Amino acid sequence: MTNRRVLVESLPTEHLSENNFKIIEDQIPSIRENEVLCRTLLVTIAAGSRAGLQGSATYAGAPQTGVVMNATGVCRIEASKSEEFLEGDLVVCQSGWQDYSSQKATQCQKIVDDVDLKHYLGALGTNGLTAYFGLHRVAQPSSGETLLVSAAAGSVGHLVGQFAKIIGCHTVGIAGSEEKCVQVRKRLGFDKAVSYRSENFRNELKEACSKGVDIYFDNVGGEVLGAALFRMNERGRIVCCGAVSQYDTSQPSGSPRGIPGLLVNKRIRMEGFLVFDFADEYETARKEIKQMIADKKILPENDVFDGLTAAPSAFVDLLAGGNIGTRIIKVDD
Amino acid sequence: MTNRRVLVESLPTEHLSENNFKIIEDQIPSIRENEVLCRTLLVTIAAGSRAGLQGSATYAGAPQTGVVMNATGVCRIEASKSEEFLEGDLVVCQSGWQDYSSQKATQCQKIVDDVDLKHYLGALGTNGLTAYFGLHRVAQPSSGETLLVSAAAGSVGHLVGQFAKIIGCHTVGIAGSEEKCVQVRKRLGFDKAVSYRSENFRNELKEACSKGVDIYFDNVGGEVLGAALFRMNERGRIVCCGAVSQYDTSQPSGSPRGIPGLLVNKRIRMEGFLVFDFADEYETARKEIKQMIADKKILPENDVFDGLTAAPSAFVDLLAGGNIGTRIIKVDD
Repeated sequence: MTNRRVLVESLPTEHLSENNFKIIEDQIPSIRENEVLCRTLLVTIAAGSRAGLQGSATYAGAPQTGVVMNATGVCRIEASKSEEFLEGDLVVCQSGWQDYSSQKATQCQKIVDDVDLKHYLGALGTNGLTAYFGLHRVAQPSSGETLLVSAAAGSVGHLVGQFAKIIGCHTVGIAGSEEKCVQVRKRLGFDKAVSYRSENFRNELKEACSKGVDIYFDNVGGEVLGAALFRMNERGRIVCCGAVSQYDTSQPSGSPRGIPGLLVNKRIRMEGFLVFDFADEYETARKEIKQMIADKKILPENDVFDGLTAAPSAFVDLLAGGNIGTRIIKVDD
Repeated sequence: MTNRRVLVESLPTEHLSENNFKIIEDQIPSIRENEVLCRTLLVTIAAGSRAGLQGSATYAGAPQTGVVMNATGVCRIEASKSEEFLEGDLVVCQSGWQDYSSQKATQCQKIVDDVDLKHYLGALGTNGLTAYFGLHRVAQPSSGETLLVSAAAGSVGHLVGQFAKIIGCHTVGIAGSEEKCVQVRKRLGFDKAVSYRSENFRNELKEACSKGVDIYFDNVGGEVLGAALFRMNERGRIVCCGAVSQYDTSQPSGSPRGIPGLLVNKRIRMEGFLVFDFADEYETARKEIKQMIADKKILPENDVFDGLTAAPSAFVDLLAGGNIGTRIIKVDD
C-alpha cells in the first residue's frame, strides 16, 4: 500500500496549469499518541485555494512548494491512537490531496449522521457556511430586497441565491456563460441570471436588477464588482467574500471606480468577512442547513470527479469556470 | 440698500478659481406669507461644496451656473411674515453667499442660546454633526483603539480627533504640511500627525500608527485612502465621509488598490454616510456637543475671514489646504 500525494511543485506565475503539480508515491504515514490515520474518501477543489498559491500572502500565509496541496476532505479512520475515534469512523479534516494523512484527533470533526457525505464538503462545509454567514450576518437581507451574487453557479454563490430566495429576495446571478445562466435560473431557481462575458453585460445587468441592487454578494472582485457598484441602491450592502477574478492571473485588474465617492453618496456598506470568524456558530447553522436539505428547500449541487489524479486538471478547469456547485474528487469509496 | 450676491458664473474644469464666481448687486428680496427676510451675518466656506460644482451629479443634484453659491449661514431676521419668527431673531438657514435672502420659515432653525454664533456653522453645524455621527454611529470606536483621520485640521477632521480623544482613542491625524501637523498636535491635541506631502509619508504613517489602524475616518479619498487601507487592522472600519482630494481636479485618481482583497482578508468594513440621515438626532447631539464646548473638553476652531467679497478667494485657498477648522466669512455684525 502506498500513499499517492499531489504536491505543489511550482507556483503559477500566470494561469495555473497541471504542470504546477506533481504526483508522488510515498509511505503511509505513521501516527502518534492522540492522532488518527485518515483514508481520504472525498476531497474538495476550491477556487479560493488558488489565492493561496499567489505570491502575496493571504490570511492563509505565504505560499509554499514541495507540500501536499491543501484541501478539506471526508475521510475514514483506518487506525486510531485517540480515545475520540474508532477505526471506521468518518470525519471531516484538512486531508489535502492525498490518499492517507495522519491527523491530530482535535483537528477531526466526526460525522455522526447519514447525510450524503458530499454535503460535508459543500452545503454543510466551508462553502455552505460561507454562503450562510455572509448572507445572514454580513448582508442581513430583508424580504423583497434584490440580491445579486457573482459566481452564481459556484460553490458558494449557488447556495447564496437559494438561501436568499427562502427569505423572499429577488435573486439575480452573474455567471460566465449563457449556458450557465440557464442552469442558474432553471436548476438553482434564481429569478434572473446574466453572463459577465456578454457584450451587453452592463445593460443586461441593469435590466435584470430593475429595482437596483440592495445586496451584492461578491465572489469575484474586479470588473464585475465595478459594474455591480454602479447598480447599488442607497444603503446597499456589498459582501466581500472573494475575488476569484483576481486569483488566476499575474495582472489583476485595478480596484473598481467610484470608491469612495459612490459609497458616500449612496451610503453603501462594503464589508469583508472570513467564515472562520463564525466558528462558534457552525453547529447551529449546520443543523438549519441539514433541515433545508431534508425539506428540499435547497438543492445543493456537487460536481464529482473520479480519482485523485484528476485533481490538478479539475482545478484548472474550475478556474476556467467549468463547475456548477461544489467540485469534489472522489478518491476512494 | 442693495443685496450683494456671489453667483457661480462658470463651472471649474480643473482647479477652482475666483473667476468662476461673479459678484452682482441686486434688490433686497420681498417675502411672502410664512417667509422671513434674512440678513446674513456669518456664512460657511465648505470643501464639500466643491463636489457640488463637479460635472457629475452628487447627492446634491447636478451643478448649476447663474445661481447664488450655496452655503449655510447664521442670519438675523429683518422682516417676518411668519408667526414663528420675530424681527431680530437669529437663525441658521441655507443663506448662500449673499447679504439678504428670503427663506421659508420652516427652513430656518432658531438660535435660542448664547453660544458663540460661529459654532452654529462649526461644531454645532453640519461639520460637527458629521464628525459626531460618522464617529459614533458609523465607526463605533472603543477606548484604546487607534483612530486615523485625514484632513485632520479641517472642519470635520479636527473635531473627529477631539471627539475620539474623549473616548480614549489613540488619535493620528493626516494633514497637508509639517506646519499644520504641529497645529494638529499642539492646538487640537492629537497624539500624532503626519503630512501626506512628506516624501516618506507611508513610512511616517506606519510609525505614527504603530499598532495599526482600527478606524480610518476618510475625508479625502484617493492616494491617502490607499495608504491608510494598507495600515488597517483586522476588523477595522473605514468611515467614508468625503473625498476632497478628488473634487478640485478634472483627473481624479483611481480607486485605491487592495479592494476587495484586503477587505476580505482583514474583515474590513468600509461604509459611506451622509449626515442628513441622522437629522432626527441632531438636537440630542447638539446638546452633548454644547456641553463639551462649555466644559472645554473640545476646542472647536473657526477660521474667520472678513467680508462677503472675500468668499471666492477664501474658497480657493481652502481647497489648497489653507484652513484650520471651519472657515467662515463674516458678512455683517
